[in-house]
Amino acid sequence: MQKLQGIMPPITTPFVNGELAIDKLQLNIDKWNKTELTGYVVMGSNGESVFLTHEEKLTLVEMTKKFASSNKLIIAGTGSDSIKETISLTNKSAERGANFSLILTPSFYKSEMKHEAFIKYFTAVADTVKIPVIIYNVPKFTGVDIEAETVAALSEHPNIVGIKNSSENARQNNEFISTTRKDFAVLVGTASMLYSGFSSGSVGGILALANIAPVECIQIQNLIEKGNLTEALDLQNRMIPVNKAVTAKYGVAGLKYAMDLLGYFGGEPRSPLSVLSVNEKLLMKEILKKSGLFTE
Amino acid sequence: MQKLQGIMPPITTPFVNGELAIDKLQLNIDKWNKTELTGYVVMGSNGESVFLTHEEKLTLVEMTKKFASSNKLIIAGTGSDSIKETISLTNKSAERGANFSLILTPSFYKSEMKHEAFIKYFTAVADTVKIPVIIYNVPKFTGVDIEAETVAALSEHPNIVGIKNSSENARQNNEFISTTRKDFAVLVGTASMLYSGFSSGSVGGILALANIAPVECIQIQNLIEKGNLTEALDLQNRMIPVNKAVTAKYGVAGLKYAMDLLGYFGGEPRSPLSVLSVNEKLLMKEILKKSGLFTE
Amino acid sequence: MQKLQGIMPPITTPFVNGELAIDKLQLNIDKWNKTELTGYVVMGSNGESVFLTHEEKLTLVEMTKKFASSNKLIIAGTGSDSIKETISLTNKSAERGANFSLILTPSFYKSEMKHEAFIKYFTAVADTVKIPVIIYNVPKFTGVDIEAETVAALSEHPNIVGIKNSSENARQNNEFISTTRKDFAVLVGTASMLYSGFSSGSVGGILALANIAPVECIQIQNLIEKGNLTEALDLQNRMIPVNKAVTAKYGVAGLKYAMDLLGYFGGEPRSPLSVLSVNEKLLMKEILKKSGLFTE
Amino acid sequence: MQKLQGIMPPITTPFVNGELAIDKLQLNIDKWNKTELTGYVVMGSNGESVFLTHEEKLTLVEMTKKFASSNKLIIAGTGSDSIKETISLTNKSAERGANFSLILTPSFYKSEMKHEAFIKYFTAVADTVKIPVIIYNVPKFTGVDIEAETVAALSEHPNIVGIKNSSENARQNNEFISTTRKDFAVLVGTASMLYSGFSSGSVGGILALANIAPVECIQIQNLIEKGNLTEALDLQNRMIPVNKAVTAKYGVAGLKYAMDLLGYFGGEPRSPLSVLSVNEKLLMKEILKKSGLFTE
Repeated sequence: MQKLQGIMPPITTPFVNGELAIDKLQLNIDKWNKTELTGYVVMGSNGESVFLTHEEKLTLVEMTKKFASSNKLIIAGTGSDSIKETISLTNKSAERGANFSLILTPSFYKSEMKHEAFIKYFTAVADTVKIPVIIYNVPKFTGVDIEAETVAALSEHPNIVGIKNSSENARQNNEFISTTRKDFAVLVGTASMLYSGFSSGSVGGILALANIAPVECIQIQNLIEKGNLTEALDLQNRMIPVNKAVTAKYGVAGLKYAMDLLGYFGGEPRSPLSVLSVNEKLLMKEILKKSGLFTE
Repeated sequence: MQKLQGIMPPITTPFVNGELAIDKLQLNIDKWNKTELTGYVVMGSNGESVFLTHEEKLTLVEMTKKFASSNKLIIAGTGSDSIKETISLTNKSAERGANFSLILTPSFYKSEMKHEAFIKYFTAVADTVKIPVIIYNVPKFTGVDIEAETVAALSEHPNIVGIKNSSENARQNNEFISTTRKDFAVLVGTASMLYSGFSSGSVGGILALANIAPVECIQIQNLIEKGNLTEALDLQNRMIPVNKAVTAKYGVAGLKYAMDLLGYFGGEPRSPLSVLSVNEKLLMKEILKKSGLFTE
Repeated sequence: MQKLQGIMPPITTPFVNGELAIDKLQLNIDKWNKTELTGYVVMGSNGESVFLTHEEKLTLVEMTKKFASSNKLIIAGTGSDSIKETISLTNKSAERGANFSLILTPSFYKSEMKHEAFIKYFTAVADTVKIPVIIYNVPKFTGVDIEAETVAALSEHPNIVGIKNSSENARQNNEFISTTRKDFAVLVGTASMLYSGFSSGSVGGILALANIAPVECIQIQNLIEKGNLTEALDLQNRMIPVNKAVTAKYGVAGLKYAMDLLGYFGGEPRSPLSVLSVNEKLLMKEILKKSGLFTE
Repeated sequence: MQKLQGIMPPITTPFVNGELAIDKLQLNIDKWNKTELTGYVVMGSNGESVFLTHEEKLTLVEMTKKFASSNKLIIAGTGSDSIKETISLTNKSAERGANFSLILTPSFYKSEMKHEAFIKYFTAVADTVKIPVIIYNVPKFTGVDIEAETVAALSEHPNIVGIKNSSENARQNNEFISTTRKDFAVLVGTASMLYSGFSSGSVGGILALANIAPVECIQIQNLIEKGNLTEALDLQNRMIPVNKAVTAKYGVAGLKYAMDLLGYFGGEPRSPLSVLSVNEKLLMKEILKKSGLFTE
């Protein structure tokens, strides 16, 4: 089994006619199994977790575990504002095979979601769940941001083992690394932070881009570890337009369309998200071509 | 049974030692039953809905229905980003006695949550649920805002009957009123908008303040309907500091503490929210005294 | 001379080939002089004040005073972050004929621009300038917002006589009215707040829309004062799409194009702003037609 | 004369009793002259530029040039929304000795300040001014952000030679570097981005921290250039609490107090900013002690 490090895709959830398509999930995982990806994140932001029912979530964990090579980590996104629901879903996910839980910062009462509330929330959860907790900080979706001093305090909890940080703030990422305990895993949350993160002490990344370009993401990591910084940066720079297209610009629908172009099953996002327009598809194709990932 | 109008509190959820305290709920509802409140909103933002489990939610609807006078409306906050979960929870709530569903705008994928997505989401939900839908717009918690043209389009759906608008933007509220069909209920979402709303065509309000000052809220409405605008405005102005204290300033914890002071059961908010500090309690007491709501 | 009340346009600054066109200013003012507008605001946000040189500003004040009917108020937008510059420009404007100064909240150091800084700034300015001060609160441009308790404190200064509030927040506007001294003038800053403001105690408005629809804006005020609330609201609702078009949607360029269509001189905004595109012009024309302001 | 690279402080403006204190400026510059700082930025955000009069600004440029060692670059912050004023102040600053102009993105009409407006603004300015232009991007003060494609286009202008980027977004900084022409200088705008910037192709930094810790800032640069990445990162991490204290936490008042503690003249910020409270001073002293910069 892998350590909590390296490149992991927050895998998309395949739907056919709006329903889970487990065979398509298998198709994708079979392809990813052939790479050096260290694990799979189920029910992350790119997995459209918020659109899934409780039962669908558990099915996804179970099937991902079943299809994944035995050395791959299974990380389940199980957090919600409710501590009770979070604990329950985490433990059920553990029973279905999840090795780690990725737990979103609570965010509904935004003005109260500060140091004290985060400490209470994550401590209550981590005290009770059967698998280790990874904090998930993603301000663009939650509207809240967790501070370094809070993460530092939480890193002392024996069952809180890392953070996925989806901000692009290099200072914040450095603070997470420098103020937490030595073996606490700071994982970058977007491919545009791979270079900055790995050259500053991040040990891994959970990256939308790894769904479609796992080899390139892994290569950036390897180049940095070998000290080939310039080459790593060049490769990352080549990937940045693609990364923007499958995240900020076109979101999950864009990521899924790119998967379709690149030999994976992408398919449609679940309603109320929409597929790309014809024009957006053309632009996405152009971006993939320019990056070298796609050739007709 | 009441029409969808008038003053309705988004009732707080009573906890003792962190668990639902149904006897305390009854105590509160018994008091509210003696007023002209037209209904009760269960599982609104002030009901700490996001901290409740699925089962707790259904219990709350059932018990609220049981304790409420027969002429009171029961409105259940049943929305989440998942269309499937929203439909399921709405229909189960209907079975337990809910007359209307209050459905939050989906909000996780903020940049995509615009006109088209809202149309798809609310249409899919309203097509299927067994009780009428009230849209719930609360930008300060969701980080998204629904536009008048979207609400106007949705108001054409036979099963979408109103909106609770928790913004304080008078222009927006007027647009909701003037661009939707005649019998579409625009409800203000905070007591500070009572005067502006009722004098512009709003027919009701779902107000945190109505938990502790139902009589005053109803009086503002009555004064406006009788044309006593100055008196209505004066009363509202007297309530604004209290309203701020139980919403923006101290949140649910503040509202619950005020309930304790005023003869209701407030109690503690659920973790990770915290009770007020000693100093905050003193300040809250002062604010209530100044408003005339509290006398020692 | 008028009192500080009623409807006043923040007049646009006419440019021909990027330079001040004083004859065009005269043309516009001649038209406005025939209405019951109570005054003219020079160097407001719609006057592209930030694009003008010191000398151009003084010329504008002088020429506006010269062209205006003797009973019209001249209000000069003279505020900047620098207390020294603000005092200097205000006093020079007073010498050229300004009756009041409209002074923007300082805003560069956003996180420090709170109660204490606003008190220091406006007190220092008001202590020294020769004409009365109107506070100008416009969060969408400055990124800062002034609180009611600050305005209440400043309203005690003998030389601070009012506030132009360009937010659409009805609660905030009510607080400004109810917490300041009786003769403090709360002026709404956008036509969409006319109804809400005048029916709650605002005594005037400084409105982009008054550049092109002075008669309609004045009529809304008159209707409210006569107690014809429904008619006033209907008229305002008819104006809201136009108001949006000349502010949030198309900005100064839109306002100037609408002026051109309606018999005023609008012309081009100064660089780096751009004129409307052909398509935007068509849409603007449609909006004006629908409102009844424009007929071909 | 230095090239546009290396570490440059945006020097604070010394005031005594609210007026320029040129002798204190000399005292500070004499100290900085002994370091390997490559230049001085006058009238930057930390120079309280927005509080200065036109004449004071020119005096500051002249005196800084006079006191600076002959090999130091003089960069003058001369931008405002007005193209005319910006050109005028830039050329007058050039006459007083400025080698470069640092020109803030225009920002008043926030919703219009996008690609096209930035291209028009910076092209008009750079076409006319006598010294090279450095773009100044500082979203936290302006509320606008310039995109990489805009900077890339502007980098083709022969008189636009660099950008000071005060955001902490590593992806954005990398895009500025990778999409602009080879000799375009991307300067980081805060010490927390030194490591990330220099290890990714930034050639310099304009840093508040360089006012009080020039040697440490220069050392971080030197360590990275020698390939001692770990040591560089350690040193930066040690500086981050200080950097936060003199920027986000306590602002210019904090920076000036730290200067007083460390042998420079800091003094009071200009009104409406305030000096630190007694308690804030104690906390600042603690932070400086912990960093090793200050010993009693």
